[in-house]
Amino acid sequence: MAKKNNEATPEGAPARGDWRHYEPIQLSPILTHALEAFYEHGFHGTTVRDIARRVGVTVPALYYHHENKEAVLVALLETATNDVIWRASAAAEEGGDGPRTRLANVIEAVVLHMTHRVRLAALDSELRYLQPDNRRHYAATRKKLEKLLDEIIEDGVRRGVFAVTLPAETARALLGMCQAIATWYHDGGPLRPEEIAERYVDIALTTVGARGLPARSDLEHPGGASSIG
Amino acid sequence: MAKKNNEATPEGAPARGDWRHYEPIQLSPILTHALEAFYEHGFHGTTVRDIARRVGVTVPALYYHHENKEAVLVALLETATNDVIWRASAAAEEGGDGPRTRLANVIEAVVLHMTHRVRLAALDSELRYLQPDNRRHYAATRKKLEKLLDEIIEDGVRRGVFAVTLPAETARALLGMCQAIATWYHDGGPLRPEEIAERYVDIALTTVGARGLPARSDLEHPGGASSIG
Repeated sequence: MAKKNNEATPEGAPARGDWRHYEPIQLSPILTHALEAFYEHGFHGTTVRDIARRVGVTVPALYYHHENKEAVLVALLETATNDVIWRASAAAEEGGDGPRTRLANVIEAVVLHMTHRVRLAALDSELRYLQPDNRRHYAATRKKLEKLLDEIIEDGVRRGVFAVTLPAETARALLGMCQAIATWYHDGGPLRPEEIAERYVDIALTTVGARGLPARSDLEHPGGASSIG
Repeated sequence: MAKKNNEATPEGAPARGDWRHYEPIQLSPILTHALEAFYEHGFHGTTVRDIARRVGVTVPALYYHHENKEAVLVALLETATNDVIWRASAAAEEGGDGPRTRLANVIEAVVLHMTHRVRLAALDSELRYLQPDNRRHYAATRKKLEKLLDEIIEDGVRRGVFAVTLPAETARALLGMCQAIATWYHDGGPLRPEEIAERYVDIALTTVGARGLPARSDLEHPGGASSIG
């Protein structure tokens, strides 16, 4: 799985700030057409034959590249998960040591992913049809995102920047709030991804009890902050 | 559609407080088995033949009751939507004139629906495969729930009980947060529906900037409150 240079993985081009930058996603023709088909008709509503027809290849040619339809879905989920994880991680890192900026950045990154990559993000609802092994793998990967948010929130609470009684539940709720965007967002809607992201950052900061102070503020470092790793 | 006494509709048994009460949902055998099949394999992953086999009837017998597979999904979505709408409306009404209690009640009602009725709630992700007419119908019905939340939040902001800059977006975000529960909740998980509801009420009250005061408080009626309908 290493050294693919045509996917938006961490090995791709994750220079600082790049997490805000979106190009049309680089996928093989098979994955590109499969993604469109799954978006329109769902995983179960799409046959291998449908995908092959869209690509303009034979079914055996498709099987040469992917073991079966589930393997196609897995490849797309892999791309989706890698995309959101590297962007969210880069966004958190760019936020430095400040919980407020880190949280704002991560929410922005997740919302930008949910909108700019809405077709990939919408695959989420197909997760439960995966075979148990594959499902567990993605559940674990997605858990990373929840854990990243949870750690930022707990850090903010420890440092008195956030007022949250249930950090883990709040992390999950915030993520759910962002993931639900993929159920209503569509290209060409009234709001651009950046506008939606700005609003969700505002809502998220209120949710952790941190609103009213500028999101990217240095005020949030009270003293030496020696307790945080 | 009037006078069905075997569905959880407003005509059913919506006495005060009943919105917190859940019995096994009353569905015809066809709808019961279709719901299980859709939950396990998705709408597109289920054939009319699968449903007939589960019920133990012939395919023509099934077509006698439902025009096609989409009509079965529509009947289930109708039940799901009616269930959550009447419960949320009753919960809001029971909250009287207080935005905080009304919001807490509605969030509690929606979360209880998402958990106690997780199979119905999970049908949400099948909505986008409906024919345009049916899709528009459900989008409009679900919009009612968003509007209910939005009105409560705007009322709270007007009365100085909530601190929210984006009421409509916050309503949608809170609803998304609750709807996402259906993607991870399963019967027999570590938390009971009532415990999850309690936590989400807490998070929602923080999100509207209303936490710190008791959820069911009379403190939230400052003076005569003449401006609210």
